[in-house]
Amino acid sequence: MTRVVVDVMLKPEILDPQGQAVADALPRLGVTGVRSVRIGRRIELEFESTPERQQLDELADQLLANPVIEDYAISLPEQAIPEEAA
Amino acid sequence: MTRVVVDVMLKPEILDPQGQAVADALPRLGVTGVRSVRIGRRIELEFESTPERQQLDELADQLLANPVIEDYAISLPEQAIPEEAA
Repeated sequence: MTRVVVDVMLKPEILDPQGQAVADALPRLGVTGVRSVRIGRRIELEFESTPERQQLDELADQLLANPVIEDYAISLPEQAIPEEAA
Repeated sequence: MTRVVVDVMLKPEILDPQGQAVADALPRLGVTGVRSVRIGRRIELEFESTPERQQLDELADQLLANPVIEDYAISLPEQAIPEEAA
């Protein structure tokens, strides 16, 4: 099984009211020194076998992200870590 | 400036209707072989200086995640990458 993570964030130029609401709440929690907060979606998919990169791009473009206002990043966490010797 | 990423996901035992909806839609897009889909939040915070780990844990526990049904993971992307020689 292969785990794929797709992180979808609003494009930098797009206003993020959710993030702004969190940023405004932080001082009330005593958290200072935060310049910005941006909130997006993290989508974890489990594939039976390792999918093609092109298939993942199509999936992200057509279903998981709105390419007009969002950017996405695809990562395969398990494959990022070097295989430990068995 | 220090960028902190907090990934908030539903606990594994909690039903994820959003993820289920995406999983059901995938075959219509011709994407097969997906065993599960889970959707969570990715929160990116920019701090003026590197915050204490304890401060980040409190922030995640009290504001960003609901500890009853969600788990969170905190990462500092820039610090995960070894500094390149200037």
